[in-house]
Amino acid sequence: MEQYNASLPYDRLFYAQDIAGSIAFARANFNNDILTKDEFAAIEKGLNEVKQEWAENRFEVKPNDEDIHTANERRLSELVGKDIGGKLHTGRSRNEQIATDMRLWLREELKGIEKLLNLLVKTAMQRADAEIHVLMPGYTHLQKAQPVRWSHWLLSHATSFSFELERLREVIKRVNRSPLGCGALAGNPFKIDREAMAKELGFDGLLYNSMNAVADRDFVFETLQWGSSFMMKISRWAEDLIIYSSLEFGFVRLADAYSTGSSLMPQKKNADSLELLRGKAGRAFGQMAGLFCTIKGLPTTYNKDLQESVEPLIDHIKTVSDSIQIATGVLSTLTINPEKMLAALAPEMLATEFADYLVRKGVPFREGHHISGRVVALAEDQGVPMDKLSKEQLKGIDSRLGDDVVECLDYERAVELKDASGGTSKSAVKEQIKILKEVLGDA
Amino acid sequence: MEQYNASLPYDRLFYAQDIAGSIAFARANFNNDILTKDEFAAIEKGLNEVKQEWAENRFEVKPNDEDIHTANERRLSELVGKDIGGKLHTGRSRNEQIATDMRLWLREELKGIEKLLNLLVKTAMQRADAEIHVLMPGYTHLQKAQPVRWSHWLLSHATSFSFELERLREVIKRVNRSPLGCGALAGNPFKIDREAMAKELGFDGLLYNSMNAVADRDFVFETLQWGSSFMMKISRWAEDLIIYSSLEFGFVRLADAYSTGSSLMPQKKNADSLELLRGKAGRAFGQMAGLFCTIKGLPTTYNKDLQESVEPLIDHIKTVSDSIQIATGVLSTLTINPEKMLAALAPEMLATEFADYLVRKGVPFREGHHISGRVVALAEDQGVPMDKLSKEQLKGIDSRLGDDVVECLDYERAVELKDASGGTSKSAVKEQIKILKEVLGDA
Amino acid sequence: MEQYNASLPYDRLFYAQDIAGSIAFARANFNNDILTKDEFAAIEKGLNEVKQEWAENRFEVKPNDEDIHTANERRLSELVGKDIGGKLHTGRSRNEQIATDMRLWLREELKGIEKLLNLLVKTAMQRADAEIHVLMPGYTHLQKAQPVRWSHWLLSHATSFSFELERLREVIKRVNRSPLGCGALAGNPFKIDREAMAKELGFDGLLYNSMNAVADRDFVFETLQWGSSFMMKISRWAEDLIIYSSLEFGFVRLADAYSTGSSLMPQKKNADSLELLRGKAGRAFGQMAGLFCTIKGLPTTYNKDLQESVEPLIDHIKTVSDSIQIATGVLSTLTINPEKMLAALAPEMLATEFADYLVRKGVPFREGHHISGRVVALAEDQGVPMDKLSKEQLKGIDSRLGDDVVECLDYERAVELKDASGGTSKSAVKEQIKILKEVLGDA
Amino acid sequence: MEQYNASLPYDRLFYAQDIAGSIAFARANFNNDILTKDEFAAIEKGLNEVKQEWAENRFEVKPNDEDIHTANERRLSELVGKDIGGKLHTGRSRNEQIATDMRLWLREELKGIEKLLNLLVKTAMQRADAEIHVLMPGYTHLQKAQPVRWSHWLLSHATSFSFELERLREVIKRVNRSPLGCGALAGNPFKIDREAMAKELGFDGLLYNSMNAVADRDFVFETLQWGSSFMMKISRWAEDLIIYSSLEFGFVRLADAYSTGSSLMPQKKNADSLELLRGKAGRAFGQMAGLFCTIKGLPTTYNKDLQESVEPLIDHIKTVSDSIQIATGVLSTLTINPEKMLAALAPEMLATEFADYLVRKGVPFREGHHISGRVVALAEDQGVPMDKLSKEQLKGIDSRLGDDVVECLDYERAVELKDASGGTSKSAVKEQIKILKEVLGDA
Repeated sequence: MEQYNASLPYDRLFYAQDIAGSIAFARANFNNDILTKDEFAAIEKGLNEVKQEWAENRFEVKPNDEDIHTANERRLSELVGKDIGGKLHTGRSRNEQIATDMRLWLREELKGIEKLLNLLVKTAMQRADAEIHVLMPGYTHLQKAQPVRWSHWLLSHATSFSFELERLREVIKRVNRSPLGCGALAGNPFKIDREAMAKELGFDGLLYNSMNAVADRDFVFETLQWGSSFMMKISRWAEDLIIYSSLEFGFVRLADAYSTGSSLMPQKKNADSLELLRGKAGRAFGQMAGLFCTIKGLPTTYNKDLQESVEPLIDHIKTVSDSIQIATGVLSTLTINPEKMLAALAPEMLATEFADYLVRKGVPFREGHHISGRVVALAEDQGVPMDKLSKEQLKGIDSRLGDDVVECLDYERAVELKDASGGTSKSAVKEQIKILKEVLGDA
Repeated sequence: MEQYNASLPYDRLFYAQDIAGSIAFARANFNNDILTKDEFAAIEKGLNEVKQEWAENRFEVKPNDEDIHTANERRLSELVGKDIGGKLHTGRSRNEQIATDMRLWLREELKGIEKLLNLLVKTAMQRADAEIHVLMPGYTHLQKAQPVRWSHWLLSHATSFSFELERLREVIKRVNRSPLGCGALAGNPFKIDREAMAKELGFDGLLYNSMNAVADRDFVFETLQWGSSFMMKISRWAEDLIIYSSLEFGFVRLADAYSTGSSLMPQKKNADSLELLRGKAGRAFGQMAGLFCTIKGLPTTYNKDLQESVEPLIDHIKTVSDSIQIATGVLSTLTINPEKMLAALAPEMLATEFADYLVRKGVPFREGHHISGRVVALAEDQGVPMDKLSKEQLKGIDSRLGDDVVECLDYERAVELKDASGGTSKSAVKEQIKILKEVLGDA
Repeated sequence: MEQYNASLPYDRLFYAQDIAGSIAFARANFNNDILTKDEFAAIEKGLNEVKQEWAENRFEVKPNDEDIHTANERRLSELVGKDIGGKLHTGRSRNEQIATDMRLWLREELKGIEKLLNLLVKTAMQRADAEIHVLMPGYTHLQKAQPVRWSHWLLSHATSFSFELERLREVIKRVNRSPLGCGALAGNPFKIDREAMAKELGFDGLLYNSMNAVADRDFVFETLQWGSSFMMKISRWAEDLIIYSSLEFGFVRLADAYSTGSSLMPQKKNADSLELLRGKAGRAFGQMAGLFCTIKGLPTTYNKDLQESVEPLIDHIKTVSDSIQIATGVLSTLTINPEKMLAALAPEMLATEFADYLVRKGVPFREGHHISGRVVALAEDQGVPMDKLSKEQLKGIDSRLGDDVVECLDYERAVELKDASGGTSKSAVKEQIKILKEVLGDA
Repeated sequence: MEQYNASLPYDRLFYAQDIAGSIAFARANFNNDILTKDEFAAIEKGLNEVKQEWAENRFEVKPNDEDIHTANERRLSELVGKDIGGKLHTGRSRNEQIATDMRLWLREELKGIEKLLNLLVKTAMQRADAEIHVLMPGYTHLQKAQPVRWSHWLLSHATSFSFELERLREVIKRVNRSPLGCGALAGNPFKIDREAMAKELGFDGLLYNSMNAVADRDFVFETLQWGSSFMMKISRWAEDLIIYSSLEFGFVRLADAYSTGSSLMPQKKNADSLELLRGKAGRAFGQMAGLFCTIKGLPTTYNKDLQESVEPLIDHIKTVSDSIQIATGVLSTLTINPEKMLAALAPEMLATEFADYLVRKGVPFREGHHISGRVVALAEDQGVPMDKLSKEQLKGIDSRLGDDVVECLDYERAVELKDASGGTSKSAVKEQIKILKEVLGDA
């Protein structure tokens, strides 16, 4: 049972946060006249020593150290004596401590993730800028639809990631609020200055209801929601690249570091990195789903069930953080095969251009659509690609298909014609890069 | 297969949005010289007629009307002729249409939910203000811990809901961006003015990558994440009230409209409304979880799988919206039983007060904690409640327990002493109300 | 609130089961002397009339008919008078009624699904038998690995489905047990013969604890677990076929009824049916996940939350049932392109054959593996497919690569060599068909 | 990337299974004349030495040991030389190896869990038998409904667990089938005797399609489905006991080992063990949900995503196994408070008895129900408990309420009257114990 119950095996990760919180709390109690100047000085010095022990992996865990708070206080009392150490916890509860520790730790982790995600988006933007001339088939339903720029594909995912960047900043804002000074559930009876403690610890503000502050693991849940949403998007990006790196497509080739070759089949490159990214989307989701079930229907306020939020959070943060870095590594090192991409374009993908050509001549779209359908059908009947039909054959279908209709058979032109905002033309693609830069900011 | 595929049975809900989007699109194509003034006028008039038919439940669905877009265009062409009707879809795709329709519809729904949620929080605040004098046991682990105000309980949940209000506003911001003008996946080739269309439709801005704009159901997923998060919180609130309305607790009594009585056992009131609220948290979660699985690992861009986002979204919005209203109804009509709440307070819940009393006399907290533990133990040994111990008995435990220690045995005093921000004192509770008012704003 | 609470809109689906249960209950009460012969006769006749009204869509719902049980009893009393109708519910509770109705309904549905699933597996087996000569690339990591039979692919999924068939039969066994005679939670006080009722209703046995019998929705949850597991498998099958029907692969072509063509791009066939199957795996999962959350942590015994099991169950059954039929339709109508499959085989996929060739000559596998890797590398260096290397070039790599090594370059031979159980040889494939036939039985 | 990819940190857990599989495979290759007698003997001896190294924690991991298979083969070759070690993998693939290892490991774990679950059910049965005389309120909607035996409550959960025991046995049956001899995906080319290997390893039979056998993690998913279903049930059991151990109910008191006392509030006993059990239901569910998402939509056959099945499985098995043991510990050590249970019974819970009394006198149930409702109402009007009404008052309501109606006011009688199968009478409870014993069997 002890082992089922103990949290030290994982909450030791928060040792520095726990100690920072204790020092801030002690300082506030010194300002409240609970502690004398000397007592506070001894506590601060002692706690810094405990921190050093953890940092240098010298901290000795004792049998009754069931969690990081107990362990730290026990050790402090050994260092500074029980008379002083016994005053540290005045007006405080482990409930507020663990909430404080988790929020402090998570804030830093999420800020780190924000930087990593920034870099991923930037990497995509840079490739989009550098490789803007490369065309490839755009797909719907995994069927070739219309030609697009490779950059446009890159930016479609980068744009999607950038929304998660926005959301992440909002999550951080809510995570970074202080529960310290809320007691076990009812608040602090010694007029402790919560604002001062929050400021010392870098919090953005207070949580204003003590029962909410100690019972709430919503900040964990929102983090897991964010992380699983991001991983869902990474899974789609990975799926695309897995398909594009199959021999049948052959658009991209992963760097050796991110794939597994085979001594038997050197042309075979298993996209292990991408498959793991895709697979770990499930893992990240599972953590979020599990926590929902754990929290749902719990009565007010703290219940031990909430301990089940810690391990999933820690693993989730690691999973997301690793995954962004792997994705950035994959993206910055993969090589593209523009010839294969070009070869995969098919004249039939330009059928819409014929319809648009007719629209420009005043034909109603639905009629133009119908006529270009007949062009494609004729090509199929004749067993030739659409671009091999003669001018006469085209005119035979509809006299409005003039000599200049052959211009429609140019992939680059088709791509450039989509130059409204959001389209595939160079200028529209560059506009996207500009917009993304603004979202990234200086971070 | 047709029935498995068809979406009209549910996407007809978006008829007004579909028509608004079509009118905006036609206007933009008029400004682009795709349509003449007369053609646009005919289309606008025709579409408004179609809208009227839907509104009056006169619209006649035909066999090939597989979705709302097809149905509307088919009907328009009947009304204004194929030559004009056939021009409506110029440069447009159903992919951008459904994304536009869903975002427009959802924006309005979420704004409605924002108002409802505002009202729920307000209802809690008003009760908190009006019933601030009522004390009750505060629980941890469903065990009596410390006395709190009933208002403090009310506000603990209201605070939690208010964070969801903040999040909801952020969700709306991301939902309300325009995909119109993005085509099937590659953009618009007729220099359409996307900004103007977005403005006409009340969007807050554009989606800047056409592939992202048409393939993305992240706005649905984020909505379901939000909704399930909110429902998780409602489930905890409901759980509390279900327990508080059991005969064993008896703190609250639901209004008849929100409970089921029994002719056999008039004292029995099943809290059906609260149980449904709690149960529907699962339903809301399931919709979110299902959509995650549906989207995860999909290749770029639109795939039919995404159709599976529509029905869950519609039911989710209804579930959340109904649930907030039910919760508001329950909260505004329930009666409390302050006597039962008071009777449930036990002197042992004041043991911490003894420790704090000693702290104020300079005793280290851990020692004070130990001493008050002995007080409780003595009471238990003697078989009397703690408040029946004599002054002598108390002094026998520790001489520092002076005559004035009896002051500790006052629940009101204990509650008032917690007057740091976030605590249970009247002033701290009133501060919470003030903070919440600011969050609510004018909305 | 009434609308939030009411279940008749969906539990009316169970009208026939509800009536069958009531007749069995009345008969048992007649045998217990609660009802006279005439009373029972009147009740039976009346209930059959009510059933007829439902069947002919003539049943008139009244305002207080909150669920199917209330509606039926109300109507019965109108038909036979309150004196007799008022005896129907003697010793019975709606809690046992809804559990009985759901189990009866679900049993029949699951038996229907068993038949459909049987047919899907049979369809796969028949194609596997008929098209056993067709070879295709076998993939791992979506990379070509080794040649296999198309039949082997078909049977890999059929085998997987057959395990679900086994599980389904186990689920049915647990669903089909009788809660009737368990009362509201404590049992029946009139010595009712539960065995006789169970027999009349076709149940396989009793549920033996009344509190469990009425509170338990585990049979629903197990069904949803089964259904989501099956849909997970269908999603993998659909994913394969979506990829195989892309233009880049081109192995299969869906029948028109199961795909969406495009007048513009006749070669484009969106595999809508398969995408929906894949997408609906998410929906099915979401229902299961939602119900888990709803049930988790509920106290004993019936709570209104459990009402949230009904709608997901109904939709789930429909989703799974439809999906199996769609899958069977897709599979029985798709055409394969054996030439494209053959063309997709690459000599490098035979590299393992070289290693095995050497093993047969006594070379340790790891060494043989290394040598054949050098063969592939040489081919790549020379810029020729592996099968174009000369005998001299091969011997130059290792003298043990004798003249007969060219035999390795035969896909059919490679496939036939895998003739241990479970392998790709014709005999091994036929063994699989035989095994599957046994699993299917006569059903 | 290496760290993101490596599985040895967790798949080392399967070292013994990996080695057993390798020995069986080598033996089969000896029987196939791939290995000589001496080679096989050397391999068997060498592998047993490797196993010993693992068992004694002496195995030295080298940088390229990315998984347990590679590590073991590398070490074997060091011990017996490359010429012999290099033959071990003949005709074998890591794909079949990991599937074999996981199935062997899981089979043993599940058999262990079967025993633990058996013990939990037995513990409940024994208490049910020993404490059959204790009465308590039965609840619906957390409202007092009818009196039941404490044993009946115990058995309601034990019955529910016993269904999971049945399911577990079915899961084991499907887990315990052999993929060995299936190669990377296409089978074995050396006529290996799969039946013999399966027999040596204790498998119940073969998997008959090689692609299915190596790609399939359905046995993991089915296990997680089972585990999460079981944990859902444990969460309800835990919820009941948490509520029953609140001060307001006070029916049970957990042993100190399974609760956390407080030096301040000795009467406070936080049911930490039960809260963890309830919370871990979420964790177990999350693992299942995550794996669903990971597997859903994966193409044939092995993809690296499937590696994400291993860690959740290991943690899941530990979670379930620990939880059953904790639950058994809690149940076998808790003390009940029969006086509090009895005191919680209220005369109003006997109102149904009045109705049943009238039914026995020929009154239609609905009328009897109505009359007893009036009895309760009168008691409430008079401000007395129902059992304090005089005979005259009762007759005043309805003359058929004779002198003998007071017999209805006996809880024991009410409980004994429910003596149809499944009810609360002693004989019905004992029948349940008998049925459960049969389910448990000898295991």
